[in-house]
Amino acid sequence: MAQALWANDRCFVISVEVAGVGTICRVVWRGHVQEMSELDPLARDAFMDVVFGVEAVLRGLARPAKMNVASLGNLVPHLHWHVIPRYRDDAYFPDAIWAPARREGVEQPLSRPILSAALETGLGKQTKPLL
Amino acid sequence: MAQALWANDRCFVISVEVAGVGTICRVVWRGHVQEMSELDPLARDAFMDVVFGVEAVLRGLARPAKMNVASLGNLVPHLHWHVIPRYRDDAYFPDAIWAPARREGVEQPLSRPILSAALETGLGKQTKPLL
Repeated sequence: MAQALWANDRCFVISVEVAGVGTICRVVWRGHVQEMSELDPLARDAFMDVVFGVEAVLRGLARPAKMNVASLGNLVPHLHWHVIPRYRDDAYFPDAIWAPARREGVEQPLSRPILSAALETGLGKQTKPLL
Repeated sequence: MAQALWANDRCFVISVEVAGVGTICRVVWRGHVQEMSELDPLARDAFMDVVFGVEAVLRGLARPAKMNVASLGNLVPHLHWHVIPRYRDDAYFPDAIWAPARREGVEQPLSRPILSAALETGLGKQTKPLL
């Protein structure tokens, strides 16, 4: 597991480098829950506040053509959201990043310290860091 | 545009038949907005209430192995969510439905009248039907 960039008592945010795209984020729920509709509405809204807060941070830093947000988890049935900045010259645009690549793709990496600082500005101070 | 199965003044729900999977739903925001983080938080929560309400309805009707929920919109940059029941014998499992098919896939169609009735039970009476 990559070191978290931001965390509170319910969820944490990591970054992942996707070939042909660049840096994306994942927001992972700490509790072992499979489906969003199993969460109580307050917990669900708090989780989505973080997901859409990460979206806003990535929009500000990466200036993507579009944001993609997805909860799949077919392999790992534990709630997590992919928050993905998309670019017209990434390997998959305009398809989903799970489709076959259309081109080599220009990767847009984001600096981890800058991303971490922007998350703390956008989401507030993390309240329960992972280790 | 398919006829809506359920609608309120902000969004509407349609069903779509996906080859190798079966019936999925889309929840479409009426206003022309590109990103979730452009919505004000109350509107956003109201939208997600419908999305996760549809998820709960589909879980009840379809008994999927996992639900997938995604907002992509690279081709149509107008907010809409895919709410997708996934089955171990669908064409793509455990990959995303945008990946190459792994097998022919057993399709699980849902009856439109049953889906429509279940949405009204799960989400409440629709308040502003589409014509």
